[in-house]
Amino acid sequence: MPEQLQKPDDRPASTTTLRPPPVIWLTGLSGAGKSTIAAALQPLLRARGVGAVRLDGDEVRKGLNRGLGFSAEDRHENIRRIAHIARLLNEQGMVAIVAVVSPLQALRDLARSIVGPSYHEVFVHAPLEVCERRDPKGMYARARQGAIARFTGVSDIFEAPANPALTVDTSSCDVSAAVQQIMASLEGTAPTRTLHQ
Amino acid sequence: MPEQLQKPDDRPASTTTLRPPPVIWLTGLSGAGKSTIAAALQPLLRARGVGAVRLDGDEVRKGLNRGLGFSAEDRHENIRRIAHIARLLNEQGMVAIVAVVSPLQALRDLARSIVGPSYHEVFVHAPLEVCERRDPKGMYARARQGAIARFTGVSDIFEAPANPALTVDTSSCDVSAAVQQIMASLEGTAPTRTLHQ
Repeated sequence: MPEQLQKPDDRPASTTTLRPPPVIWLTGLSGAGKSTIAAALQPLLRARGVGAVRLDGDEVRKGLNRGLGFSAEDRHENIRRIAHIARLLNEQGMVAIVAVVSPLQALRDLARSIVGPSYHEVFVHAPLEVCERRDPKGMYARARQGAIARFTGVSDIFEAPANPALTVDTSSCDVSAAVQQIMASLEGTAPTRTLHQ
Repeated sequence: MPEQLQKPDDRPASTTTLRPPPVIWLTGLSGAGKSTIAAALQPLLRARGVGAVRLDGDEVRKGLNRGLGFSAEDRHENIRRIAHIARLLNEQGMVAIVAVVSPLQALRDLARSIVGPSYHEVFVHAPLEVCERRDPKGMYARARQGAIARFTGVSDIFEAPANPALTVDTSSCDVSAAVQQIMASLEGTAPTRTLHQ
C-alpha cells in the first residue's frame, strides 16, 4: 500500500493540498458507514490544510432538500442538487465529501456528469444483514415494520456501483482503515491528483 | 456552537480566524458590486486562514437552481436553497459569502430565519442610474428593451433593507474600501465575532 499523504519532511503539514480537489462521493446502503467515514475524513483533510465540506444526504434532506421524497423524480432532484453544490465547492478549491445512498447507477452517473473529472466514487459496502444489525437510526426496523415506504435494501433496490474508484468493505475494516484506503485512492488516481505543497 | 475555525497552535501567527464564522449576505441591485465584492472578500479571508465559500446568485442559477425563474415563488425557493447551503457551510465552520439580489425584505427575512444569528446582512448600494450605467452584463439594456421580464430595478421592485448590519455605497468607494468596511463590520458586530490574531 502506498504511503498515505506522504510529503517531504521539510514541508509543514498545513500546506498540503489535494490538486485538483476531489469530490469524494460515498455511496452505499444506510448503515454501511458513509456518514461516519465522511465525519472522519473531514478533520483529517482539514488538519492537513485542505478545505473540506461534508454534504450528508440525511442532513441535506432536513434543510435544502426538505420537501423531496423518495420517488424516482425526487431522488433524481436530490442527487442533482447535491452534485451541483459539490461542483460549486470543488470549483472554489474545496474538497466535497458527499455521503448519500445514491442507490442507482443512473443517479451516480448523473452525479458524475455534473461534477466532472473530480468525481471520485467510493462504494462504502457492507452486507445488508450487517447494515441492518447496526441500524444506527432504527430505520431498518421501521422499514421492516412497513413504516417507511421505499427504503433502500428493504423495499427499494440498491444497484452496486459499476465502476467505483474504490470499494471499502466496512464489515471487515474499521473507520480508520477505511479512511486510510480512501486517502490512498485519492493519491493514486492520477499523476495530477497527487499531494503537492 | 458550530465547529470553530480554530487553528492548531503550530500554525503561523498571521493566521486570523472569525468566530463564529458569519454568513455575509450581500444584497443589492444588479451592477451594485455584490459579485465583485464577494470575489475580493474570499481570497482576503482565505489568506487569513478562514475557509470561505462564495454563493453567487447568477452562478447558482446556472447549476443548482437552474429551472427556477423570477416569479415570487421561484425567488423564494432560490433564496431558501441558498440560505440552507450557507447555513450548512456555516455549521461546518466556513464563512459563506452570498451575493444575491434578494430584492424583498421578506426574502431577506427568510434568509435570516434559516441562517440564524450568523446572518450578517450587507446592503451593497449604488443608485439605480449608476448600476445601469455600469451594466456589467448588459442586463439593464436588455430589460429596457423588454427582453427580460421582471428585472429588479427596471420592471420589478427592490426594497431597501430595513436593518442591514452595514450599508456600503459603491458609488462613492472602491472595491478595496468596500471590503475593508465589511471586514470592520464583522469585527464589530459582537464580542464573539472578532478577528483574532
